[in-house]
Amino acid sequence: MKISALGEDELIRRLSRGIRVDSSVRRGIGDDCAVLEGPAGKWALFASDMLVEGVHFKTGARAEAVGWKALAVNVSDVAAMGGLPRHAVVSLGLPPSTPVRWVEGLYRGLNRCARTFGVNLVGGDTSRAPKRVIDVAILGEVEKSKVVYRSGARPGDWILVTGRLGGSLKSGRHLTFMPRLREARAILSRARPTAMMDLSDGLWVDLPRLCRAGGVRAVVRADRVPRRSGCSLKQALTDGEDFELLMAMEEKQARRLLRWAERGFPCGLTEIGRVAARKAGPAVTLIGADGRPLRSALTGFSHF
Amino acid sequence: MKISALGEDELIRRLSRGIRVDSSVRRGIGDDCAVLEGPAGKWALFASDMLVEGVHFKTGARAEAVGWKALAVNVSDVAAMGGLPRHAVVSLGLPPSTPVRWVEGLYRGLNRCARTFGVNLVGGDTSRAPKRVIDVAILGEVEKSKVVYRSGARPGDWILVTGRLGGSLKSGRHLTFMPRLREARAILSRARPTAMMDLSDGLWVDLPRLCRAGGVRAVVRADRVPRRSGCSLKQALTDGEDFELLMAMEEKQARRLLRWAERGFPCGLTEIGRVAARKAGPAVTLIGADGRPLRSALTGFSHF
Repeated sequence: MKISALGEDELIRRLSRGIRVDSSVRRGIGDDCAVLEGPAGKWALFASDMLVEGVHFKTGARAEAVGWKALAVNVSDVAAMGGLPRHAVVSLGLPPSTPVRWVEGLYRGLNRCARTFGVNLVGGDTSRAPKRVIDVAILGEVEKSKVVYRSGARPGDWILVTGRLGGSLKSGRHLTFMPRLREARAILSRARPTAMMDLSDGLWVDLPRLCRAGGVRAVVRADRVPRRSGCSLKQALTDGEDFELLMAMEEKQARRLLRWAERGFPCGLTEIGRVAARKAGPAVTLIGADGRPLRSALTGFSHF
Repeated sequence: MKISALGEDELIRRLSRGIRVDSSVRRGIGDDCAVLEGPAGKWALFASDMLVEGVHFKTGARAEAVGWKALAVNVSDVAAMGGLPRHAVVSLGLPPSTPVRWVEGLYRGLNRCARTFGVNLVGGDTSRAPKRVIDVAILGEVEKSKVVYRSGARPGDWILVTGRLGGSLKSGRHLTFMPRLREARAILSRARPTAMMDLSDGLWVDLPRLCRAGGVRAVVRADRVPRRSGCSLKQALTDGEDFELLMAMEEKQARRLLRWAERGFPCGLTEIGRVAARKAGPAVTLIGADGRPLRSALTGFSHF
């Protein structure tokens, strides 16, 4: 069987089966970052994300924007755990014909993102490759009291999302987006999400992941999903690469947080639905303003 | 200008220029691993290494061997700093047509290497790519009293190398090699190298790097370079992918260590030359048994 027939989630599930880790690993494969024994009072966060020419950026994309994105997607993973990024290493695969100027532009973008979010670029690797590949691994940390996993959502929780969704690839925003690092830290200083992740593959793919991780399901009010201007509901749910934060939170805290956000949370924070107890059927139900399920045949971005 | 005209070392030098790091970084770009503030009494080590189909392994290479190599090259980087590996993340770029069995084989190899060297596989990323790419980032640690950099060699030091060199690619050993982790730890429990690195691009390329890092040069006795059976001197110096340890050490310590190694250091340890004060001309001089310089036109593996 080819991996295209299996899909990304099932492939990862199969590969994870044989893996054993020791007691210094608090959380391994399956969240935005691994969570590891860290300095006193903190966990270390560890993750990597690969960008491939022709898949995550077009051959003609601005080098500086590609560099920004390569680090920003990793900063977003750290933000989704509630942490702060610290250090990154960069592995580059490049065709020998790559212009030096392109690589220098890439590093300008990496550097700009690193300075913006307090990341040290400390090493990596360069290699020949048939297409440009940039893989960044990031090391971060998070106070033990603040770490948020993907798996903690409970029935009754409200589901919140930052910003607006859709059109990221078409608009080019996927190359220049601001990871929600400060926003995550601001939320965590005021509330305690039960689960959190960043939206990389689209709400329609990522929310089921959050539900499966927590053994729950979700009911989403279609009319409440915050869309980027000009985007249809389908685009908002399935375009992907939004890099907004998706979280679940106990109702009382959610109400208080939403009131606070109304007084000035620049990117916006929206309640889009509720967590419910697991039952047979799809992990996410889309409902209208009248509470009735909407029929839909939406699919998210698949990596293969 | 294309990167092929610039070369790997000069490219890295250029890219490093604009990078600023904070005081938690003890050593950034330019060594086998970055050295970072770690848990009490230790430094954290952080590195990554990318393998590309058609460059580091043939399309038909055994998946399990490729998986072993992908982690082993990183374990070798940690060994070269004197440390122990702890955790790794794996970014995979794969064509959609990749057989699931191949990826499962790859993970068997990764797992086997992880168990052999006490590494936790804790996460990573999967992506579509035109050719198979495996990038592993590793996190390790080292006692502050044991860390060895690439840069500390001093005139008068002896130059030692583990194992035998040459023929790694031709024999397939580059896919199945044992990183010198236990050997490095055994050496460090008995001696204090002034500089150390692993041999990935061939002694003829890597020893000049060690010399430049330390502001010194080296004089190598050609007849003492330990060659794999059937390998010429040129092959031993330039084939690359040996993943042996190259180190410099004060004479008295080196003599004592070599006596100890004679009594049972399975991979072998050989003195191949001396560190000398910098002067104009090449960083490494090859001499014969009579002490006279050998004329040679050797070149090492270039990544581009």
